[in-house]
Amino acid sequence: MSATFSNLDDFRAALAAAPVVDAKAMGEAEERNGQLTKPPGALGRLEDMAIWYAGWRGNPRPSIEAPQVIVFAGNHGVTAQGVSAFPAEVTEQMVLNFQHGGAAINQLSKSAGASLDVIALSLETPTADFTQEAAMDDAGFLAAVQTGWDAVNPESDLLVVGEMGIGNTTSAAAIANALFGGEAEDWVGRGTGVDDAGLVNKARVVREGVALHGAGDGVDILQRLGGRELAAMAGAIARARSLRIPVIMDGFICTAAAATLAKAQDGALDHVIAGHVSAEAAHGAVLAQLGKEPMLSLGMRLGEGSGGALAINILKSAVACHSGMATFAEAGVSEG
Amino acid sequence: MSATFSNLDDFRAALAAAPVVDAKAMGEAEERNGQLTKPPGALGRLEDMAIWYAGWRGNPRPSIEAPQVIVFAGNHGVTAQGVSAFPAEVTEQMVLNFQHGGAAINQLSKSAGASLDVIALSLETPTADFTQEAAMDDAGFLAAVQTGWDAVNPESDLLVVGEMGIGNTTSAAAIANALFGGEAEDWVGRGTGVDDAGLVNKARVVREGVALHGAGDGVDILQRLGGRELAAMAGAIARARSLRIPVIMDGFICTAAAATLAKAQDGALDHVIAGHVSAEAAHGAVLAQLGKEPMLSLGMRLGEGSGGALAINILKSAVACHSGMATFAEAGVSEG
Repeated sequence: MSATFSNLDDFRAALAAAPVVDAKAMGEAEERNGQLTKPPGALGRLEDMAIWYAGWRGNPRPSIEAPQVIVFAGNHGVTAQGVSAFPAEVTEQMVLNFQHGGAAINQLSKSAGASLDVIALSLETPTADFTQEAAMDDAGFLAAVQTGWDAVNPESDLLVVGEMGIGNTTSAAAIANALFGGEAEDWVGRGTGVDDAGLVNKARVVREGVALHGAGDGVDILQRLGGRELAAMAGAIARARSLRIPVIMDGFICTAAAATLAKAQDGALDHVIAGHVSAEAAHGAVLAQLGKEPMLSLGMRLGEGSGGALAINILKSAVACHSGMATFAEAGVSEG
Repeated sequence: MSATFSNLDDFRAALAAAPVVDAKAMGEAEERNGQLTKPPGALGRLEDMAIWYAGWRGNPRPSIEAPQVIVFAGNHGVTAQGVSAFPAEVTEQMVLNFQHGGAAINQLSKSAGASLDVIALSLETPTADFTQEAAMDDAGFLAAVQTGWDAVNPESDLLVVGEMGIGNTTSAAAIANALFGGEAEDWVGRGTGVDDAGLVNKARVVREGVALHGAGDGVDILQRLGGRELAAMAGAIARARSLRIPVIMDGFICTAAAATLAKAQDGALDHVIAGHVSAEAAHGAVLAQLGKEPMLSLGMRLGEGSGGALAINILKSAVACHSGMATFAEAGVSEG
């Protein structure tokens, strides 16, 4: 399904109309899994991942041939509050680095056999400082969501979305605080590397933002406390769902953007798996709120989709085992 | 270095003569890591892995092009004690499955771009029941070590060793108990799926084996409580060291075999990284004894080298980031 969003309710309606998993294909995949030449359960979570993937693809013996990584970049007015260790111009410099193939996500996408798209969202016009007003107005928010929605290649069979945006861990912390409650201090972390005073400042900024914009559903919160790259990630994750393309989430910022969808519509992340848990302090807590167990835990905290892209090969391997292994009957192996 | 082992001391001498890491290459890799376009430490353990790999390869900007997976198979006299949920003939049936491409390790090796060698060690003649006598005599043990040593392709740049051998979690538990002390119950697990009574029986068998053969150094313990596939894995890991080929360990049985080397010679596993921690109860404890932090924790418990092979793509990705990323200067990105 293609779509054009004229107002926020159009996007909410798209979330509500999303397809569910193909229970028949999933059941057939589960049955196949039980016949493969291994002790029951011996591939651990790889088995669950393969069955889940089969269900979403509607194919009990699928393969992963065309993963897509999309990195969205945005600039944040909230950097005026001094929340980042890096200057805001680094967002654009890193976009050039992505385009020239020099960043981590370039190497990781290549290692995963994934295509990589880089989409810069109006970097010259940062979003508003959310301690003063909503980060985006309706039109600006919907344009970013639409950009994400339209960026998903319908021919792909797996999606990773990532981001670049100096200041966006502050935005993600504010979203998490608004969605899940608690104190601002529970959700802020060091991002690219702020010091202790910087951490106190981030908590203040989050507290002010949540006080101003913390009401409303997930979509409202994403508009008011998010950024263009977060809105675009949410749009892309929603579009993938409409296309039955499974998604691997990346780190804290990606997960916060995704969480707004889950708060707007029950089950909106059923087609989404957590690629990793990052070193950013609150990421594990957001994953726990979403009931998502990460595939990897390697102390990464880079963003760019890096943890999600790294996890592609794990899911590919899980699906390759599921679809490529012989059954006990085919191999003439005695069952236990 | 090639070698022929006429007696156990020849093998001990090979361990003692092993090369150490190239500190210069490692230092240069560390310096390069600090210049790459990412906040310091943002790739987490990927950075440590890449630097470690660079040090062992003697190349500050290496790549991984030719990983080798070797699966060794052996049969165990101790199966006469009823320690496994599967009959002993499954070892040979699974070797045929490996040869025909139908097992998990075939799919995982392919997904990792690794070659796969399968070596069956005298399956028709199980080792002796170690509750009665040493599993192998000197000649039989040395032949298995030599097979492993000779199986490593000197042109490869990464090694994973795995195993197939009905009964070999009992052998691994006995080795771990002999090396690290404690009670037999601390080291036995469900293997391919024994029930509670089976677990009690495994502990009895381990206790009897350790009482009979628990003295001696790591090499002695490997001979008396191991199996041919464990001895061959140890031989291959030692050979890889002599060739400066880094090794990714697999699960409980592989790690127990490797641990005998560490007990025979300090630092014998410095070129070895832990691919995963398995669901087999005592694997985490053996890794902790060795000071090895696993790359993955996905509840796998299959053996065959599966967890090690799955981890190849993680290490490949780490090295690809290290060697392929632009520096701040190259990319014109401002540092924080």
